[in-house]
This record gives sequence, structure tokens and C-alpha cells, in this order.
Amino acid sequence: MIKIIPLGGLNEVGKNMTAFEFRDEIIVIDCGLKFPDDEMYGIDLVIPDITYLLKNKEKIKGIFLTHGHEDHIGALPYVLKEINVPVYGTKLTLGIVETKLKEHGLLSVVNLVKVRSRNIIKLDNMAVEFIRVSHSIADACSIAIHTPAGVIFHTGDFKIDYTPIDGGMPDLARFAELGKRGVLAMLADSTNVEKPGYTMSESSVGDTIVEIFRNTKGRIIVATFASNVHRIQQIIEAAEMFNRRVAVSGRSMENIVAVAMELGYIKAEKNTMIPIDAINKYNDEQIVVITTGSQGEPMSALSRMASSDHKKINIKHGDKVIISATPIPGNEKLVSNVINQLFKKGADVIYSKLANVHVSGHACQEELKLMHTLIKPKYFIPVHGEYRHLKQHGELAVKLGMKPENVFIGEIGDVIEVSRSAVKKSGTVTSGQVFVDGLGVGDVGNIVLRDRKHLSKDGILTVVVTIEKGSGNVVAGPDIISRGFVYVRESEDLMDEAREIVKEALRYCEEEHLTEWSTIKGNIKDSLRDFLYERTKRKPMILPIIMEV
Amino acid sequence: MIKIIPLGGLNEVGKNMTAFEFRDEIIVIDCGLKFPDDEMYGIDLVIPDITYLLKNKEKIKGIFLTHGHEDHIGALPYVLKEINVPVYGTKLTLGIVETKLKEHGLLSVVNLVKVRSRNIIKLDNMAVEFIRVSHSIADACSIAIHTPAGVIFHTGDFKIDYTPIDGGMPDLARFAELGKRGVLAMLADSTNVEKPGYTMSESSVGDTIVEIFRNTKGRIIVATFASNVHRIQQIIEAAEMFNRRVAVSGRSMENIVAVAMELGYIKAEKNTMIPIDAINKYNDEQIVVITTGSQGEPMSALSRMASSDHKKINIKHGDKVIISATPIPGNEKLVSNVINQLFKKGADVIYSKLANVHVSGHACQEELKLMHTLIKPKYFIPVHGEYRHLKQHGELAVKLGMKPENVFIGEIGDVIEVSRSAVKKSGTVTSGQVFVDGLGVGDVGNIVLRDRKHLSKDGILTVVVTIEKGSGNVVAGPDIISRGFVYVRESEDLMDEAREIVKEALRYCEEEHLTEWSTIKGNIKDSLRDFLYERTKRKPMILPIIMEV
Repeated sequence: MIKIIPLGGLNEVGKNMTAFEFRDEIIVIDCGLKFPDDEMYGIDLVIPDITYLLKNKEKIKGIFLTHGHEDHIGALPYVLKEINVPVYGTKLTLGIVETKLKEHGLLSVVNLVKVRSRNIIKLDNMAVEFIRVSHSIADACSIAIHTPAGVIFHTGDFKIDYTPIDGGMPDLARFAELGKRGVLAMLADSTNVEKPGYTMSESSVGDTIVEIFRNTKGRIIVATFASNVHRIQQIIEAAEMFNRRVAVSGRSMENIVAVAMELGYIKAEKNTMIPIDAINKYNDEQIVVITTGSQGEPMSALSRMASSDHKKINIKHGDKVIISATPIPGNEKLVSNVINQLFKKGADVIYSKLANVHVSGHACQEELKLMHTLIKPKYFIPVHGEYRHLKQHGELAVKLGMKPENVFIGEIGDVIEVSRSAVKKSGTVTSGQVFVDGLGVGDVGNIVLRDRKHLSKDGILTVVVTIEKGSGNVVAGPDIISRGFVYVRESEDLMDEAREIVKEALRYCEEEHLTEWSTIKGNIKDSLRDFLYERTKRKPMILPIIMEV
Repeated sequence: MIKIIPLGGLNEVGKNMTAFEFRDEIIVIDCGLKFPDDEMYGIDLVIPDITYLLKNKEKIKGIFLTHGHEDHIGALPYVLKEINVPVYGTKLTLGIVETKLKEHGLLSVVNLVKVRSRNIIKLDNMAVEFIRVSHSIADACSIAIHTPAGVIFHTGDFKIDYTPIDGGMPDLARFAELGKRGVLAMLADSTNVEKPGYTMSESSVGDTIVEIFRNTKGRIIVATFASNVHRIQQIIEAAEMFNRRVAVSGRSMENIVAVAMELGYIKAEKNTMIPIDAINKYNDEQIVVITTGSQGEPMSALSRMASSDHKKINIKHGDKVIISATPIPGNEKLVSNVINQLFKKGADVIYSKLANVHVSGHACQEELKLMHTLIKPKYFIPVHGEYRHLKQHGELAVKLGMKPENVFIGEIGDVIEVSRSAVKKSGTVTSGQVFVDGLGVGDVGNIVLRDRKHLSKDGILTVVVTIEKGSGNVVAGPDIISRGFVYVRESEDLMDEAREIVKEALRYCEEEHLTEWSTIKGNIKDSLRDFLYERTKRKPMILPIIMEV
């Protein structure tokens, strides 16, 4: 019997992390972060709650990475500070991890173990096998966990690309072999389960890019995901085809391109790559800039170009900007703003609504069916998706012949027991989200977020009053200072009246001999809240402070 | 020479409003609102800045409405309070306006003038003609303004639907006639200019709905835009086809359905409509509920059903929920959350990714070309879109043969002069956005919003200290109270240290004989900010308050 404990990635998109426990061994697949949603005011990152792993530290044999995307590796620096175990991954994945650990000053203390497709890492009771698959980053793998109780297969993020850029096909033969020998349970990527058909090959984007390059006279600026080294390779090849030099802008783009070139994942002719400072030595028709900012991120290189805030590049008439990505849900407006600004500066902008300049990294329905058919698992646990994706992925498995009771739709924290006779939930462990805000990991919780939300809606009124010890007489104040409520200069009357309301509340407390501070504060708060709501239909936070002298 | 002054709707989606001035007459087309974007913390609505209209009050002959959507009529209550002029519109448009004015207690003081397609309202110098067009609300019109200087044609929001639900075709004949006689300038809807081909007919959605109804045994709940009376009519007809009763949920849905039925825009058989309270008297297969919430709005009826917070409807296994809409950019995550919750409750959910349950109300490229070809304007001003839409719509006009210099891409506040010889910008008037927050109209400006944003990111620390008059000695405090910064119980050390930092700043001021309150406050703020940033990498708002006794 094997326990599968998802700690992230179910009923959410992001912070993928799953523990697999067999006898006294635990292995962890992926260790990702999630970007905060709109309600997480001020939060920088979200990482999984690893309470369960901390409690079982001594059992953990390693963290095994399927690929180098943030939602699969981004929590590593935080987790490795608490649990220092070996980290296994392919060359490019570990190259990206290294950069990340260096930034956190952790590189020297962590044991990174490089693996290749078909490598098997033998532990005491389990053996972990990496198997090549296609995705929107190079060097991605599925993982098969071999145990005496059976094989558990985790697809990782995948698509089936028959014409991949690096020539490395997804290892369909090994999938088929595993399927033939028998797979007990499969966990599979559900991202694109709503989409019929196939995801287009990455090489189709290359064709579009070549066509655009062929018809462009001015500078070309391409924004894409830094981690999509195949996309970057195709842009470089198109540049070489039309005798353009390539410069790189944006911190993550510079980092990953450097790592990928060093490791041989991106190849360029000797003179192709030039520093961004050198672009003005060339004519416009000789230049390509590859940049970050395809999601409209406000501080990214492309956003800075769009708002004339980039140190090296001023967008001008004749520039062609290609946004080689689609907006991730929630980023539509940011991307749209950048496109508008670029157009206003005279650039011609090409984006996914107008041309085939992006493909997804995730399998659509027909590819999912292929994977299910090759692996033929007894049990199926859809992962990497919101509930609706998991649900529909389960239905797809049933359509392919799986018994409905063999599909398990889980939640993070579920302890899912898989044996030859059943898949079932046997318990729950602590799980959830830990907020990273600045240097703080976990010090911002729901109360703080609730306050930030409240403050963001209607601001705050601080009411200060100084009273005399013993007598309780007011000796200074009440003063009211507001922030984020109304523009005070135009609302002096309102604030004067508010002060009167507080005075009245204080008088009432005095007359009624209410001397408890909490009672006085409560009275101030209630009467002020009612007054302000009646007058403005707003509910600012009210913070009464009593000083005693 | 005619002046065209857009006050909203250009370089934005929403708050459509344009003034047309000829000699001493001004007419206004549409008077819409915009919903706040993410950065407009706490704002309820955004309306156009009408300073220019207020300055020219006596010239304004009326507000002419193309149709009853919020982004075309939503600012009426606010504008009419300042400028009470007649409002012209078709029956359904005014029906919706009446409900709105009633809520604001304005119905009795405003002169609403009902018009029909092909009606012409003659003013002293201009004549305003309404011409039927298709859109995602019934009774929509384009408007032609006839003046001695030429005809100005405003498409309003439109699509070309050859199989409309109400049998009323867009008045292509009249468009052609105007074009033949000569149109000086056209303003046209640019929303879908990025989309090739045609927008599907509204009736195609009806076909899908009938198919879904045919295959459904349980209750059916359909969420859609309240104003899409044609969609609602089709749902009612499908219900009648399969012997289902129809109940309505959600305030705006109830309001608009009531108005539309009263005015004859929605027709139902005698027993079809039932009150929501009566649904439990019927079997599941006899029930359809039409509801608001297709955009995932947190307080809407559908969201309340999804979160088990609806008074009348508990979602259960077997329910079928149809979300007959696509998420407006920015609402994707809200809609996604609702879908996930509904699936979790056991409902089967059908949405635009899975089936053809929605069509747009706006013309795609081929429909735009038809309109340009029929109207054949000399000058063209693309409207109703972000800059990228306006730009591409201009390019589309040029492809159809218009001279590039005859396309004018404007901004709100531009005074666009159109004469027989040229279109040009002759000046600028005050324009912009006015924020409505609760009862306040315009009392929240950029400073307040900046503060709300700051508060939302890292919260606030209030530092209070009481000093003695004359001596300047600290007699109480410093006290620090934080909200939205850290969870205080777990950060006591940090707050203790912060208090020491403030004490040190006060000591320094005393030693240096710095007695100006602003200097003391500045010192507290700076030293606390530096300390907190170093320790937490966060920058909460710091509010020092000095009390004197």
C-alpha cells in the first residue's frame, strides 16, 4: 500500500508538490510556488504548507523535479531551509534551480543530483525513474515510482510534440512498456482537459516567427517566457536566417538564457548574441531583442519599454513587437495595457489574438487520451488543475473505459491510499498555503489580509484622545487623522462633524460613568461608524487610541 | 463645421459619452459608466468628467441613448442631477432608464422622450435620427445627426444579425440610403475589430440551449446578462418546449425581466413564469431558473447558489447550470471560482469553453466592413475601444479605401472639428474619470487611491506619543498600533524593537533640540521605515501622531 499526499496543485493552478510514502520512505515530487491572487493583498508568493514533511523529516529521501517552471521549483529555497534533502532533476532543471539557490545563499549547502531520462534512482524501498516528455520548457520528465506494491506514474506537465525543437521525442515507447507491465495508479496533468483536439507543436510557432521576420524591416522585439528555451532557440534561428543580431533584456531572461547556453540548450552562431548596450551600433533591420514581460508584469522589461522607462530601448515607429505568449488568467488587463502603450508609441504589435505566435505546453484531450491509453493505469488521480479540470479529466478517463470508482478526485492534504484492491482516502494531514511577504514567511495570515482588504476599500480613521489618569477627563483631542478615506481638504465639514460625534460619545461615556477603555473605544467606534456610513455609505476602518497621562 | 467631443469610450471600454456641437447647439450621445479596475481600490463606479457640459449647460438639447447597457446609460442619474435635459431613447432603453432613475428618486423630474427607429428629432440646427441595429440588447439604434454641414453617423454598439430573435432586422436599407446621400463622418464600434469573420447570430445560442434542455433531466439554472432580453426570450421558449416553468433570481434580472415583459420584449405563455418561492412545488424536470451572476460577481445570485448562500436554491447533484456568457476581461478568476464551486456541489456546468452558449453583441471584421461599405463616410473616427482597437479599426478603414489622413484616432477631451475639407483636432476640453464611492461622487481622488493602494500592500503603523506643552517631554507613549502589517501576537519582538526605535528617534530630537512637530514626525517616520524595511522588506504606511497636554 502506497500513500499519496498532495500538498499543492489540486483545486488550484500552482504550488505543485506531492509526497509519496511507502513503508518508512517518503519522496516528494516538485516543490512549486503560486503567484498571489487579487485577494492576497501585498503578498509576494504563496508556497505549500509543509507541516507534514517537517514532522516526517527523517523519512524524506529527496525532492524529484519534473521540470524547471516556478510552479514546480519555486518553493525550493523556502523548503530546503527547513528540510535539507537531495534534489534530483535533469540538467536544465537543475541549472535553473542553481541560479535560484544562489540568490538565496543556499547553493553550497544543497545536494543537487543530475539525472537523465530513463535514469532510475534506487532507494531502499522505492525506485524513481525519470522519463522524457514534451512541455513548454526543455528537459521535462514524467516520473515513475517503482515499489513492491506497484508502479505509480506521474506525468508531470506534458504535451505530446511529434516535431520537438531539440529532436528529443517524448518517450512514448517507455510509457507503453510501463503500461504493458502494469501501472497501479497514474497522476496526470489536467490543465487543458477542456480543450478538444491536440496542442500544436512548438515548431508551428517557429514557422510563424520566420514569416513575421521575413516581412519586417525595423527592429524586432519578442517577449516570451524566459524558461521557454525552445521558443528562444527558434527566435535565434529566425534571427540568423535574416542576418539579425540578438540581444537579451530582463533579469530572468538574461539568467535563463545564460544557463541554457552554457548547458547547450540554446545554440547560436558565434556573432549572433550581442549585449543590449551594443544594439545602437547596428541598423534597425539587424536587431532582435528577446525580452521578459509577456504577461504585462509592471516591472518587466517590456512594460518598461512600453512606458518609456527602459534604459536601453526606446520604442519608435517601425519597431515590431511580438508577444509570444497568451495572458495567464488574471493578466489580461496588464497585457492589454502594454499592447496599447506600444501601439501608441508607433510600434506594430503582434499577439496571440492576431497570429499563431504561441502554443500551450499542456496536453489537450486527444493527447491525454493517448497517455491514458499507453499507461493504462488501474487507478487515476487527476492533478494540476482546478476542481473543474480534475472533474472533467476524471470523466475523460471513464469515457476511456476506467471504472468510475477507480478515479479519485482529491484535495490537498488528503492521504490517498492506493493498494491493488482500492484507492481511498485514509486521512488528512495539515496542508494549505503559506504567504511570503518580503522577508516574512508565514507571518501574514488571514487576519492581516482581512485588514488589508478592509483598508484597501475605504481607508482608515485613527481617533486619538488623551485622558487624565484618575479623573478620566479628556485633556487632549479627540484628533482624527484619516488615510484613504476622503480627500480631507474637500471634506473638512465632514471631519469636523466626525470630531463632534466622537466628543459626544466621550461625553456619553463620562455621564454614564463608563470608564473601561474597551467600552469607551467601542462607543467611539460604533457612533463614528454609523455616522460615516449614513453620510458616505462607506465603512472605513476605525482605530480609536486612548493615551493616559 | 461640427465639433465632436468624446468624453468617454475612447482608449477604454466603458463610460461611453460623446458631445456633438453645431453652432449653439450641443447634443450628447450616451451617458455610460465604467466599472472600476483593480487599481481603483474601493471605488464603486466611474463616470465621465462632464465639466465641459456644465460650462455649456444652456446649449445642451438632450441626451440621446443608443441602447440600455450600463456603459451607455449608467451615468445618467449622476449627470441628470447636474444637467436636467430631455433624454431620448427607444422603449426598452427608457424602460431600463426609468428603473434606474426611480432608484435615485429622479424619475419625476426628468423628461424621457420615447422614440422609434427612423424617428427624427428636429432641433434648431440639427436633426437626430434613430436607426435600428442589432446588439446584445433589444431595441438598439445607430444615430445619424443631420446638420447643414453634413451628416454624422454613430453606429452605437452593433452587430449584423440576419436572424434576429425579435424579427427586427438591422435597418441596412436606411444605412445604404444615408451612405448614398453622403455621410461626412462615421463613429463606429471597434470592440471586435481583432476578430476575423462574423459574429454568430443570437439564434445560434437558442439552438444550443434547446439541445441542452432536450438532454437534461434535472433542474436547469441559466445565468446570463439581465439586459440580454433576446437570450432570456430564447430560454423561456426552450423551457416551454420541454414543459418547464421559469423562475427568475437576482435583483437586476427581476427588474429587467419585469420591465421587458411589461413592454412586450419578453413574451411567455400564461403559466410559464412562476415566483422563485414556488419552485419547490414542481419536480426538478419542470424547473428553469434564470439568474444573474454570469460574471462571477461575488454578491450575485449564482455566486450565492455556488457558495450555499442563496435563500431559495440549494445546488444539488443533477442540477445543470448553464453560464450563458463569456467572462469580461478581469472576471476570469471570479467565474472560474463559481464554476468550481458548482461542480463540487454536484452540478453539471456548461460554459462557453465547452459549448456554444454565448455570442458577442459586437461586429467582427466582416460586419464592420459591411457597415463601412454601406455608410461610405468621408471621415472616420473609430470609437468604443482601447487604443489597439481604434488603431486596427482605422487600418481596416484604410484597407477598404479610405485615405489614411481621413481617419482620426482621438482621445477623450479632444475637440474634433469636422468640415467638408478636413477632420482635425482644434483643442482640448477637461475630461477624465470621476469616481463614485458610496454616496461620494468625486470626493475620492488620486491621493486617496494612492493611500488605499499603499495600505492594501503592507498595512499601517500608527505611532502615538503625548508630550508636555512647553517642556516637550514625553509624558505618554510612544504606542504603536498596527493593522494589516504583521500578526502582532507572533511578532511581539519586532513591535518591541520598533518602539525602541521610536524612543531613540524622540531622544535624538530632544538632544538636538528639534522641537518642530513636523521634524519630530519626520524623524519617527524615517527611522521606523528604515528599521522595518531592513527587518521585513516591507514598507507599511507610518502615521506618527503627536498629542500635547
